[in-house]
Amino acid sequence: MRDKNNPIGVFDSGIGGLTVVKQLIRFLPNENIVYFGDTARVPYGTKSTSTIEKFSVENALFLLRFKVKCIVVACNTSSSIALPLLKDSFKVPVIGVIEPGAREALSATRKSKIGIIGTKATILSKAYEIQLRRLVKAEFLEKQKGLKIVSQSCPLFVPLAEEGWLNDLVTKEVAKRYLDIFKHKNIDTLILGCTHYPLLKNVISSVLGSDVRLVDSAKQCAIEAQRVLYAEGLLNNDKRKGNIEFFVSDEPQKFAASGKKFLGTNINCIKRSSDV
Amino acid sequence: MRDKNNPIGVFDSGIGGLTVVKQLIRFLPNENIVYFGDTARVPYGTKSTSTIEKFSVENALFLLRFKVKCIVVACNTSSSIALPLLKDSFKVPVIGVIEPGAREALSATRKSKIGIIGTKATILSKAYEIQLRRLVKAEFLEKQKGLKIVSQSCPLFVPLAEEGWLNDLVTKEVAKRYLDIFKHKNIDTLILGCTHYPLLKNVISSVLGSDVRLVDSAKQCAIEAQRVLYAEGLLNNDKRKGNIEFFVSDEPQKFAASGKKFLGTNINCIKRSSDV
Repeated sequence: MRDKNNPIGVFDSGIGGLTVVKQLIRFLPNENIVYFGDTARVPYGTKSTSTIEKFSVENALFLLRFKVKCIVVACNTSSSIALPLLKDSFKVPVIGVIEPGAREALSATRKSKIGIIGTKATILSKAYEIQLRRLVKAEFLEKQKGLKIVSQSCPLFVPLAEEGWLNDLVTKEVAKRYLDIFKHKNIDTLILGCTHYPLLKNVISSVLGSDVRLVDSAKQCAIEAQRVLYAEGLLNNDKRKGNIEFFVSDEPQKFAASGKKFLGTNINCIKRSSDV
Repeated sequence: MRDKNNPIGVFDSGIGGLTVVKQLIRFLPNENIVYFGDTARVPYGTKSTSTIEKFSVENALFLLRFKVKCIVVACNTSSSIALPLLKDSFKVPVIGVIEPGAREALSATRKSKIGIIGTKATILSKAYEIQLRRLVKAEFLEKQKGLKIVSQSCPLFVPLAEEGWLNDLVTKEVAKRYLDIFKHKNIDTLILGCTHYPLLKNVISSVLGSDVRLVDSAKQCAIEAQRVLYAEGLLNNDKRKGNIEFFVSDEPQKFAASGKKFLGTNINCIKRSSDV
């Protein structure tokens, strides 16, 4: 039985999904949230389709034990690969970050030239590309004709962000190589298709120029969750501030320390799940 | 029952342990080998002690199903963290890469000044440092007095090696930062405390100079396995070339492609284990 008071479940391969939690708190402050970060098996972006699907299903099953009323897949890689399987498998609504990100990019672009960066798995899946073309066909007909999409995987961006080299000459040199493909394509909008990439916004903008709009999915994903819960009559009417529980598969201490960067506030109570 | 004809079990967090397999084939060509690479949960070097121990025990249990007569822990991180637990838990001999690497470094150094590079978990564990001091105390008394050890974790080296940027200006710049600490310490020997690092030998040597000897544990680890099996009366007397089976936890195709770099030959039959 799904109930309005049940929590929203959110999972990510690790820590980056906290950017989505931040936006959920902003748009749905009264909702309870259970977050699961698979920090023991992170990263997902270098793994195969079948492994990403397996991990994603296990994460969803973990959240379902808390009787979550919907599942938000905050991880771009999981959203790109496993969303169809999750939607087919589970009764609760499953919300990913791809459609919200694609929607945001389409409303941002003026020249209908959109770039996408992400993990290897995300880029190989072509999930953003498929979603952009689907949305254009369904809703943005006037932009359909000239839509150009260019994709590039950036495997070193996550390790560089985790090393903390955010405004760094090495990171800028790496960004120059990865992003070179976009300079000649005249894009005006770039989808940051991985929750770590907003940490590198400064470097990315310094390479591409400030006129290229950088889009991340977190805000639109929270708005989509709000829309879905409203449509299903599942919005929490409680006037109190929602409660948030954090679970991780590796040790909680490290998550607490780096989590602050993504969530913007301290994270106090983090529990370890040894089940996943 | 352990039998001479039973295979040697080898595990690694992923692919790097194939460098150890290569040396095992060289020194023990008649032995059968079962290799397990935990490619679904790689890397280990950024994870916590308890997670590395859990994964290492699971990997060992997987190998024991093949009635392996000994277990070689080819992964530096697992060897640094989980070797005591594995040795305490299982009856078969367990051989790591730390003691062999430390031994090699001590016989290579002339000035008794040794550097160590590795993953965060390996460096934090101080496993090489403890082993070097233990060996000096037990066997190399004449070098004891002046032994100086300097350690540095290099988190970006594995992603750079996996990106294939082996002889690259970015990699050289990263190496300059990480290795700067050694330049002022006058080391003459550097332990490459991660199975990926030998791929970056050129860059590392170009930064530190060719007079710094680079030591990896693979060869000494194979010699140690030979010694242990001989002492236990478990060397395979078969005159035929040994059989090697490869198992991985993620999809086998990618392992086959990159494995060649580490093993030096093609890898044909790789099976997937979905149990770990």
